[in-house]
Amino acid sequence: MFQTAELGQKVLKKEFKDQELVLRTNLLALQQQLLKQGDYSVLIDFAGVRGAGKGTSTNLLNKWMDARWILTHAYDKPTDEESGRPRFWKFWRFMPPKGQIGIHLSGRYSRPLLDYVYGNIDLSQFRHQLDHINTFEKTLADDGTMVLKFWMHISKEAQRKRLEKLEKDPLRSWRMSEIDWKHYEMYDQFIEAAELIVMQTNTGHAPWEIVEGGDKRYRALRVGELVQENLERHMVSEEIRQKYLSEMRAKLEEKTEEQEAEGLNLPKTILDKLDFSKTVSKSTYRNKLVQGQARLAALHGEMIKRGRSTILVFEGPDAAGKGGTIRQITEALDARYYKVYPFAAPTETERAHHYLWRFWNCIPMAGRMTIFDRSWYGRVLVERIEGFAGDDEWRRAFAEINDFEDQLIDDGLVLLKFWLQISKDEQLARFKSREVTPHKRWKLQDEDWRNREKWDEYNVAAHEMIQQTSVKNSPWVLVENESKHYGRIAVLESVCDALEAALENQDHVS
Amino acid sequence: MFQTAELGQKVLKKEFKDQELVLRTNLLALQQQLLKQGDYSVLIDFAGVRGAGKGTSTNLLNKWMDARWILTHAYDKPTDEESGRPRFWKFWRFMPPKGQIGIHLSGRYSRPLLDYVYGNIDLSQFRHQLDHINTFEKTLADDGTMVLKFWMHISKEAQRKRLEKLEKDPLRSWRMSEIDWKHYEMYDQFIEAAELIVMQTNTGHAPWEIVEGGDKRYRALRVGELVQENLERHMVSEEIRQKYLSEMRAKLEEKTEEQEAEGLNLPKTILDKLDFSKTVSKSTYRNKLVQGQARLAALHGEMIKRGRSTILVFEGPDAAGKGGTIRQITEALDARYYKVYPFAAPTETERAHHYLWRFWNCIPMAGRMTIFDRSWYGRVLVERIEGFAGDDEWRRAFAEINDFEDQLIDDGLVLLKFWLQISKDEQLARFKSREVTPHKRWKLQDEDWRNREKWDEYNVAAHEMIQQTSVKNSPWVLVENESKHYGRIAVLESVCDALEAALENQDHVS
Repeated sequence: MFQTAELGQKVLKKEFKDQELVLRTNLLALQQQLLKQGDYSVLIDFAGVRGAGKGTSTNLLNKWMDARWILTHAYDKPTDEESGRPRFWKFWRFMPPKGQIGIHLSGRYSRPLLDYVYGNIDLSQFRHQLDHINTFEKTLADDGTMVLKFWMHISKEAQRKRLEKLEKDPLRSWRMSEIDWKHYEMYDQFIEAAELIVMQTNTGHAPWEIVEGGDKRYRALRVGELVQENLERHMVSEEIRQKYLSEMRAKLEEKTEEQEAEGLNLPKTILDKLDFSKTVSKSTYRNKLVQGQARLAALHGEMIKRGRSTILVFEGPDAAGKGGTIRQITEALDARYYKVYPFAAPTETERAHHYLWRFWNCIPMAGRMTIFDRSWYGRVLVERIEGFAGDDEWRRAFAEINDFEDQLIDDGLVLLKFWLQISKDEQLARFKSREVTPHKRWKLQDEDWRNREKWDEYNVAAHEMIQQTSVKNSPWVLVENESKHYGRIAVLESVCDALEAALENQDHVS
Repeated sequence: MFQTAELGQKVLKKEFKDQELVLRTNLLALQQQLLKQGDYSVLIDFAGVRGAGKGTSTNLLNKWMDARWILTHAYDKPTDEESGRPRFWKFWRFMPPKGQIGIHLSGRYSRPLLDYVYGNIDLSQFRHQLDHINTFEKTLADDGTMVLKFWMHISKEAQRKRLEKLEKDPLRSWRMSEIDWKHYEMYDQFIEAAELIVMQTNTGHAPWEIVEGGDKRYRALRVGELVQENLERHMVSEEIRQKYLSEMRAKLEEKTEEQEAEGLNLPKTILDKLDFSKTVSKSTYRNKLVQGQARLAALHGEMIKRGRSTILVFEGPDAAGKGGTIRQITEALDARYYKVYPFAAPTETERAHHYLWRFWNCIPMAGRMTIFDRSWYGRVLVERIEGFAGDDEWRRAFAEINDFEDQLIDDGLVLLKFWLQISKDEQLARFKSREVTPHKRWKLQDEDWRNREKWDEYNVAAHEMIQQTSVKNSPWVLVENESKHYGRIAVLESVCDALEAALENQDHVS
């Protein structure tokens, strides 16, 4: 694999000057076009052998193009902000918005590579982590992002010379460390692992380009040229892809409406099985509320102490009582350690990113709790029903959401999802009460009435959502909230049970 | 997840009769359309709980549609043909051709599920196997195949009743075995593993549909209806996708030509580094040939004894001497245990399948050797250059080929790839000699002259191919075959060294 990048490629100074000028002009024009269209972002990764030009290439790209629209990030040892969260959080964090270019140095491939070479993980774990990266890149590519990865290569001999030179240079020797010589000794193991990386993650939608890094002029031109070539190709294919997607989504929507009209065999949904007569007496409610909140306060304290984080998700029809239920929970929590995020339509900044981006931004640090009042499930609920997400997008979202939650749980986070349900009659009653009660009137919007007309569609969407995303480690808890008292106690106790179980499990493991 | 399939869905007899008639008519019409267009195949999988209707659903689909165009296969314990080959061989084997429908029972998910539930593999291995399946399904979907997977579900209680009834039925009790009750006891573990399966492999391009299997009329209609819905949607989207792909491929070809014309910085290729002056004397040749063949014969014998299989791939420009080199090898082999497959343009049957299909068909059984005179690498060589594979297809092919070879090596197969190279002058000399030598004239075709004009393009394509697919466990061996004697010895000794190393490694492991 890498022998193809040990050919002694060279470019003369004069030739470089000429070609650089052409390249700069082209790259700048492409960047302007990208920015103006604003349809997708570009993510460029540099990985490779120490001394093969990752840093200088990054600098050059920033110099050649307009650096204001380039988001460069070099990943170093994780900060405490980063290490207290799932691994991919830091990659989502520095994702460029649409129209812009991100350059990541020693990004997502760095940790698995080191862990494997140092023997911290075995081959099967290494490959599973590469599969995770593939999934991540696929998620971005499906959204239109152009992903391009450079492996900068020099031979072992060339690296030795490079390190020796660096060591002797009084101005740059501070950049050398013990680890550089240690990794030089491990050169062959790194190369073998790098082969596995390229082999497994060189996909059509996120290709690796291997660049010979021996000659600084050659590698600079080669990197620039490959960025240009790939960007030009992406512009062509992405434009056609977008056209195709619009056409396909429109046709599939027609087809779905046709199929629904035929209504061959509309199944019962799981929501039809709920029992809305469930209720509790006022005194039981008060007692259980006090007990539950006390229990929750203690458990939350223990979670904080142990650095375990929690996510609670609340979904359900309008006026199902999400807000009130959340307040009963937060009353019991230490205000320094939780946050409630309500989600409505995305802002302009949010729309310039992948739909999961705004949720990744709210992932709690170790020991914190985050409560989502509506969530990423909007993708398969309101966005599906209102056509904001195309047929391909919301169908794919089940896998994306499962992968997302899987990463959270894998990181030790406790994730609970509540679906609060009321009967259609009860919703009407609550809407009417909002209309007549001055301090509640603001809560009722025209949109609520429109959503109500699509009650059955929402039920089917919720049924499929529960079918595809309710699993042992992140279950959907269905709560009949026809009686708010009953519902609140049910939620409160579920949260306590889940935290208790998580803490007990941890005791067993440790 | 599965609680959504325990709702007690039922369909009455009368209703069933009416709906069945509509459904049959629709399905049959769709099948005819699929066959007529012949653009892609359909693969339907049935997995799920014993007694939930996998078999009866398969029978019904065969009854409702024209069974001549349905390729049904129920996977049982692997035959010796199957167990002597990589795991996915048997799934490629029963892939339906374009225009037809394949139905697989207890297919690719069955083994990982059992292995995980029985504790033969751990969670990380289980998940890695699911990743493999995802890759397989993605490969098919990229080719246009519609993949649809049914998980047939019944509750534990319903399964108990089903098994008891079966046991008491004198006509069907032979279908019961010890294992059925054992698996009933393990119901919860199976369901938990099934959740993981659906969670990880429910992709947009290969969705799972969970069907409640309690009522035989409901489940029949539901399965039929879902096949209809999915097929209708696939027809719509695949037609648009094909249109878009043609447009994109044409535009990208233009763009590539433009970029090549600019010719900013065409790099040297790895083939430019070859040394064509390498040669051996006649006597050395004779000695080494005899020694090498004797060594190969012994090693081949040992490989047969140990049930280890080998694949040798030969690629290179026309007249590079592939045929002669192969003959020097086969002379040393036991004719019962090897096969040579020459590959030219695919036949009609082959074109009705994924491009890898015809190569999967030639994978040797345990202990055998297969020699490929040209191979799957045609995808990134001739098909790329002649435009038979679009830009997206040949770029994606590197990942597909790496995954394919990875499966072979994972299964213990020894894989060696030889690139025989000659100089452009030498090719001309050999062409001319073919023209004047009567018994060689048939070997020279107009196509050879045409390919010769694209010499540089082939060199660049070969360079990129070597860059992307030469890895430690399946390297490309570059052989200067300017002197046929030199080349033959080099190949012979490489093969011997590789077999020897594989056998020694096995000794170390065992």
